Amino acid sequence: MGVNEALPTLDAVVYCTPFFKETACFGSTGMAEQIQFIPGGSVTSPSGFVAGATFAGLKTYGEHKLDLGLLMSQQPCVAAGTFTTNAVKSASVVLTSDHVAKGQVRAVVANSGIANACVGEQGLRDAQETVGLAARHLGLKDNEVAICSTGIIGVELPMALIRAGIPKVQLSAEGGLPFARSIMTTDSRPKEAALTVEIDGKTVTIGGCVKGSGMIHPNMATMLAFLTTDAAVTPALLRSMLKEAVNSSFNMVSVDRDTSTNDTVLLFANGACGLPPISGGSKAAAILGQAVTEMCSYLAKEIVRDAEGSRKVFEVRVEGARTLEDARKAARSIASSSLVKTAVHGNDPNWGRIVCALGYSGAEVDEKRVGLYINEVCLMENGMPIPFFKDAVIAIMRNPEVSFGIRLNLGDATATAWGCELTEEYVTFNSAYTT
Amino acid sequence: MGVNEALPTLDAVVYCTPFFKETACFGSTGMAEQIQFIPGGSVTSPSGFVAGATFAGLKTYGEHKLDLGLLMSQQPCVAAGTFTTNAVKSASVVLTSDHVAKGQVRAVVANSGIANACVGEQGLRDAQETVGLAARHLGLKDNEVAICSTGIIGVELPMALIRAGIPKVQLSAEGGLPFARSIMTTDSRPKEAALTVEIDGKTVTIGGCVKGSGMIHPNMATMLAFLTTDAAVTPALLRSMLKEAVNSSFNMVSVDRDTSTNDTVLLFANGACGLPPISGGSKAAAILGQAVTEMCSYLAKEIVRDAEGSRKVFEVRVEGARTLEDARKAARSIASSSLVKTAVHGNDPNWGRIVCALGYSGAEVDEKRVGLYINEVCLMENGMPIPFFKDAVIAIMRNPEVSFGIRLNLGDATATAWGCELTEEYVTFNSAYTT
Repeated sequence: MGVNEALPTLDAVVYCTPFFKETACFGSTGMAEQIQFIPGGSVTSPSGFVAGATFAGLKTYGEHKLDLGLLMSQQPCVAAGTFTTNAVKSASVVLTSDHVAKGQVRAVVANSGIANACVGEQGLRDAQETVGLAARHLGLKDNEVAICSTGIIGVELPMALIRAGIPKVQLSAEGGLPFARSIMTTDSRPKEAALTVEIDGKTVTIGGCVKGSGMIHPNMATMLAFLTTDAAVTPALLRSMLKEAVNSSFNMVSVDRDTSTNDTVLLFANGACGLPPISGGSKAAAILGQAVTEMCSYLAKEIVRDAEGSRKVFEVRVEGARTLEDARKAARSIASSSLVKTAVHGNDPNWGRIVCALGYSGAEVDEKRVGLYINEVCLMENGMPIPFFKDAVIAIMRNPEVSFGIRLNLGDATATAWGCELTEEYVTFNSAYTT
Repeated sequence: MGVNEALPTLDAVVYCTPFFKETACFGSTGMAEQIQFIPGGSVTSPSGFVAGATFAGLKTYGEHKLDLGLLMSQQPCVAAGTFTTNAVKSASVVLTSDHVAKGQVRAVVANSGIANACVGEQGLRDAQETVGLAARHLGLKDNEVAICSTGIIGVELPMALIRAGIPKVQLSAEGGLPFARSIMTTDSRPKEAALTVEIDGKTVTIGGCVKGSGMIHPNMATMLAFLTTDAAVTPALLRSMLKEAVNSSFNMVSVDRDTSTNDTVLLFANGACGLPPISGGSKAAAILGQAVTEMCSYLAKEIVRDAEGSRKVFEVRVEGARTLEDARKAARSIASSSLVKTAVHGNDPNWGRIVCALGYSGAEVDEKRVGLYINEVCLMENGMPIPFFKDAVIAIMRNPEVSFGIRLNLGDATATAWGCELTEEYVTFNSAYTT
C-alpha cells in the first residue's frame, strides 16, 4: 500500500499521487507490503517509549509554544546517531555524539529557540548542565541522556529557564505529539509518524518525528530527527542501518543548500517487543532496515513539503548511473538547482536547466545516452530533445507534485532526491529572519 | 587609483565605495597604480583588433537586437581559452577548444539567442559551417576562427539566418561596443572595458567584454568573456596567465550555483604594441598578468552587478586560510549561500548564516579562531559573537555594496568572492524564462 494514503498527519495535506506512492517503497525488495503506517502514530508508538514537553520560555515566536521536550526509553536500549558535517558544531552536537559513542544513551532532552552554537566554552557547560538536569528528572545517569538544540545561533542557553522547565515535563506514552511540537522552529506543523512491520511473527513498531523546513540540504541541515523502535538490535547493525537510511532519505532532500551547525538524527532500539536482538546479515535485519529507511524517507519528504514558502514539491529519480554515488550526486544536483526550483515554481518544462544541473553534478554522464522525463512524458532521448506538447507538460507541472526522471544508460545504480519550488515567499521569509 | 572611479560604463551605476576600491587591486603587488582604465574602452581598444555585429534574427527578445558578432586580430596572434567543466557541452565549445588547442585562432564568431547545445551531431556540423562562413568573410582559414554561442538549449542554429547574417558584419576599430551588445541575452546592458599598463616603457592595452547575468557560479556559467591585448605573449605564458586570472575572478563570482553548457573565456594577444614577446618569469609577465587579472576582476564584478533582479552586491574576503584553495572554497561557499544572499537582500546582519556557510565550505576552520566583520564592524572574534549596535550594521547593509570579512587565523592565504542578493524578482524572472 502507499505510504501516504494511510497516514493522516495533523494539519497536513495528504499527498497520494501515483509518483509518491510508487517511490515511497524505493528499494523494491518486495517487502513494502509488510509495512503499515499507523494513523496518528508518533515516537511513543513503539512499546516502552515515553515523552513529554513544556514551554520553558526559550521560543518567543510561533503559536506552538512548547520548546523543551524529553523522550525516554523506559528500559535500557541501544542508540545510534548521525550528526552534522559542518565544521562549526553546536556544543549540544559535540556532547551528544560523545554520549552516543559511549553506548548508554536511552533518553534525549531537546530544546527549540536557541541553537547553543557559537557561544564558546559556555556552550558545552550549558549542554552538560542541561543533560544533568534531565538525567536527575528521569532518574538516569548523565551519560544515558543526549541533548539536541535548534534555533538562533550565537546566544547562550538561558539556563534559569531550563532549570525551571525540565522538572515540569511530564512523560507518558501519549507524549509523542507534544515532543514533536517542542522541537519546531520555522516548521508550520509537527511532523511525525509510526509504522509497523512483521518480523519473525512479531509486530515491530517504528516511530519518528522530525523538525526542519528551511536550510535543508544533503548532509543534513537545521534538522533534528528522532526515531524509535521496540525491536532489539545490535549496536553495529543499528549504526549501519541508520547510516544507510539517512543516506537515501534525509541526505537526498534539498530545500536550499545550506547545512547547519546542529543537525542530528538519533535512533533508539529498546527491544520491548520481545524479539531477540537482530544482528547484521539476517532476513530480520533486512526487513527492519527497509522499514527504518521507509520511515526516514517519509519524514524527509515531510520536511520538503513543509519548506518555507513552498507549496510544490518535486522528485528527481536517476536511473542507470554507473555507481550509486553518481546516481545520488546527479539526483541531488538537479534537486538543489535554484534554476530548476524556480522552473518548478513557474510550471516551466525547462529541461535545459535539468540537463545543465545533471552536467555539472560531477556524475559520469554521456550526453548521447541521456533520457529525460517529466512524469510520464519523455522530453529527451539519447541526448536529443523530443518534440512534446508543451501545454500538456505545463498542465502536469501545475500539480502540487512533479516527477523528473533521468535515465543515464550507463549502469544499474538508482537514486531519488526530493526538492521544493523556490518562491518569492521563500526570499521574503528568509530576508527577515532575525531582524 | 580605484578601478571603478575612472570607468563610466554605458548604462551602469558607477560604484565607488572604499571597499570595492580597495579590493579592486587585489594581489597587493604595488603595481596597481600603473594600471589606467580607459573611459569608453572595449575589446577593440588594443591596437590591431577589429569587431562588428549584425542582427541576424536569432534573438527574439530584448531591445538590444544585435545577435551575431565577429572579433578579429588583424595580424596573427596567440590565443588561450578556458571552457565550461559541465559534462554537457555546447558543440560550439567543443569546436572552439579544439581550434584553440591547434594554436592558430585569431578571430571569433559569436551568436546569442541559441546555445547550440543538446542538438546531437547537428550541433558540430552547424558550428563548423558557421566557422567556415566567418573564415571566408574574414579571409582566414577555418582553424583560425573560434565560435561561441549563448541562449536557449535544445534548438538547432538557424543556419539560413546565419548564412545571410555573417556577410553583413562590418568590422572596424569602433566595433567593440556592437560586438559586446551582440553577445547579450538576459543582460540588462553591455559590459566592457579597457585599460592600459606601462611595460618596459611601452603602453600595453587590454580590452574585454563579457556576457552573463543569471546562472553565474564558480567554474563559470552562462558566461562568455573576450579579452584582447596588443602585447606579444608566448602561448604557455598566455595560458597560465588566463587560468590564474579566471580562477581569482570569474570563478569567484556567484549569482546562483548553476554552471552552463557554453561558458568560454578567450584571450587574444597580437603583439601590435611593438614589444618583443613576453615569456614566463619576467617582470613584464608579472605586470601583464596582474593587469589581465584586474580586467577579469572588473568584468566579473560587472556580471554580479548585472544579476537578474538584483540591486545589491556583496564581497566576501577570507583571510588567514591555511591554503589558497581553502580561502577560495570558504569565500565561494559564503557568496553562494541562498540564506546569506537573502540576508543581504533583507539588510539582516545574520552572521550565523555566514558562519554556517563557512563551516560547510570544506575549508579547514577552527571555530575558536574565527573573526567576522561586516564592513569595518567586528561581529565575532575568536569564534564568539561580540555585542554590536544592530541598527548601525543594518544601516551599513542598506548600502548597494556590502563587505563581509572572515579571518580564519590559520595561515596566510587570502581570497575574495562576489555575490549578489537573492530577491523576489530573481524568482519571478526565472520562473518564466522559456514559457
